[in-house]
Amino acid sequence: MGFGAVGKGVAEAILLKNDFIKENYGFELNIVAVADSSGSAISKEGLDLKSLLEIKSKTGKVSNYPVYGTDIKDMDVLDNVEYDCLVEATPTNIETGEPAKSLTIKAFNDKKNVVTSNKGHLALFFKELMDESQKNNVQFKFEASVGGAMPIINFAEETLSSTDIESIIGILNGTTNYILSRMTSEGSSYENTLEESQQLGIAETDPTQDVEGIDAACKTVILANIILGIPCTYKDVYVEGISKITSESIELALKEGYLIKLIAEVSKNALEVSPRLVKKNSPYAVDGTLNMATLKTDLADEVTVIGKGAGSLETASAMLTDIINIYK
Amino acid sequence: MGFGAVGKGVAEAILLKNDFIKENYGFELNIVAVADSSGSAISKEGLDLKSLLEIKSKTGKVSNYPVYGTDIKDMDVLDNVEYDCLVEATPTNIETGEPAKSLTIKAFNDKKNVVTSNKGHLALFFKELMDESQKNNVQFKFEASVGGAMPIINFAEETLSSTDIESIIGILNGTTNYILSRMTSEGSSYENTLEESQQLGIAETDPTQDVEGIDAACKTVILANIILGIPCTYKDVYVEGISKITSESIELALKEGYLIKLIAEVSKNALEVSPRLVKKNSPYAVDGTLNMATLKTDLADEVTVIGKGAGSLETASAMLTDIINIYK
Repeated sequence: MGFGAVGKGVAEAILLKNDFIKENYGFELNIVAVADSSGSAISKEGLDLKSLLEIKSKTGKVSNYPVYGTDIKDMDVLDNVEYDCLVEATPTNIETGEPAKSLTIKAFNDKKNVVTSNKGHLALFFKELMDESQKNNVQFKFEASVGGAMPIINFAEETLSSTDIESIIGILNGTTNYILSRMTSEGSSYENTLEESQQLGIAETDPTQDVEGIDAACKTVILANIILGIPCTYKDVYVEGISKITSESIELALKEGYLIKLIAEVSKNALEVSPRLVKKNSPYAVDGTLNMATLKTDLADEVTVIGKGAGSLETASAMLTDIINIYK
Repeated sequence: MGFGAVGKGVAEAILLKNDFIKENYGFELNIVAVADSSGSAISKEGLDLKSLLEIKSKTGKVSNYPVYGTDIKDMDVLDNVEYDCLVEATPTNIETGEPAKSLTIKAFNDKKNVVTSNKGHLALFFKELMDESQKNNVQFKFEASVGGAMPIINFAEETLSSTDIESIIGILNGTTNYILSRMTSEGSSYENTLEESQQLGIAETDPTQDVEGIDAACKTVILANIILGIPCTYKDVYVEGISKITSESIELALKEGYLIKLIAEVSKNALEVSPRLVKKNSPYAVDGTLNMATLKTDLADEVTVIGKGAGSLETASAMLTDIINIYK
């Protein structure tokens, strides 16, 4: 469900990696339906992803897929196809969590697993969604919703399995990290740097979700619930964006050996997204669109992951990992 | 086997985490034998780790453990106890790989799993050891041998399961990173900084294995074999240490925005440990005793992990994770 940058990335990733998956894990992925806002393409024998990507790129509509293109939309698609796992990649909606929420709950009730890159429904209804998946005894995975290609949920669960994680502090939004990095390296103003970032396609035309910290706050909620077991929703996070950061304040910080970053903190003491000073040459000092997160543990002290927070194939790789883990 | 810093760390970690493991994974760890160079303590009911740690700390010998202290040594210990998993933490020997190699192969032949923090036998006899473990259908895990508490093997296998890993480039030795970081921040000479590091206990009295890149080269071999599937041993790695780095060269690099780090490269093109220039504010620019590794993947682009490369409890946490994974 959803065939924008992430959905197309999943199709491309499957084309690239189906042989690898078969060789390493002993199963193949067969995409039996793809839906966008135009309608859907449904084939129980499996869609030809290469043709589908071409048709989407040429006409903008998956419903133009020959023979199997249909005008069946949204929720109805799920009733017209047999499947094992819903890959949910509709746009994030932080007001209602829709259509992700309804699609996901319907899939759970139909006893299907769900993998998502969406943040809205998780930030608003985390507990409800987890309860539904458990009630129906199905898997619900959302690695891509937090760090894109920066693995953090599976990292905490699989790789740090012997430790208690006490806090997570990190840079969870690539756009704001890019803006702050350029303001730092060029001494430019917030307004000019934002405009440049928009021209480069790094910031969106309406940059509110990124620059006001909303995107990072959604991710904070997801990490708090899934890794630290803190029940919370979006409204529990204190959020402050970067739009008031001046080049002067960045310069002042630099002189003392610090950088200004938009930092998310997930701990029992704080659920917070705000600009903070971080030391140069520390794990927090990563530049550009990179995301990072430092997990404070009881046994292993601090462990950090850094990776690309966005990107079509990059985000898709996290969803493929989730699918492989469900299969395993 | 082995009750130095790492072995004691494992005992401490089990004391701290046995309840956590029981709660989360449904099993308990029972240590039925511990050996150091003095002899061993063996009890099929399980040793009291708190007492054992006290006795080791007071007398230096586990064989002084009341009632169950014995003069059974080395290989013979394995014949005098029933167990499921050997935790091998004897000192690294890069000439012969002993006693780790013989202990490990004996355990395999007795159909026991092995977890190790040792590098020597892996750097010299990787293929032989893997073949033996597979032939006997037992598990062999060595997360702690590479990054200490910086997870990298489990990270690559579990968290990046959908991607091909093309190369690993990183800082795999904490002592040299500490020396280079201090030379950079203080403008001091290699000789003075090494001496200071020795006084602080960060560098050893004979610092050769660290400063000449031998330790990092062993880790390079392990990563090449286990993650990239490149069959190799220690002699295949080009190694250059840090003892010829001058404060002048560090200062020159700094002026151009670079730092000098001892970098290990693991790729089809190169197995190499050598000083290299890295960009400031990049994931490679971590200071102090930290280790880091950037994994270049096909789908997720570059993903980096950073963590403590050494430390008793930290290294033990990696061994506990291995034990949990074997159990799972």
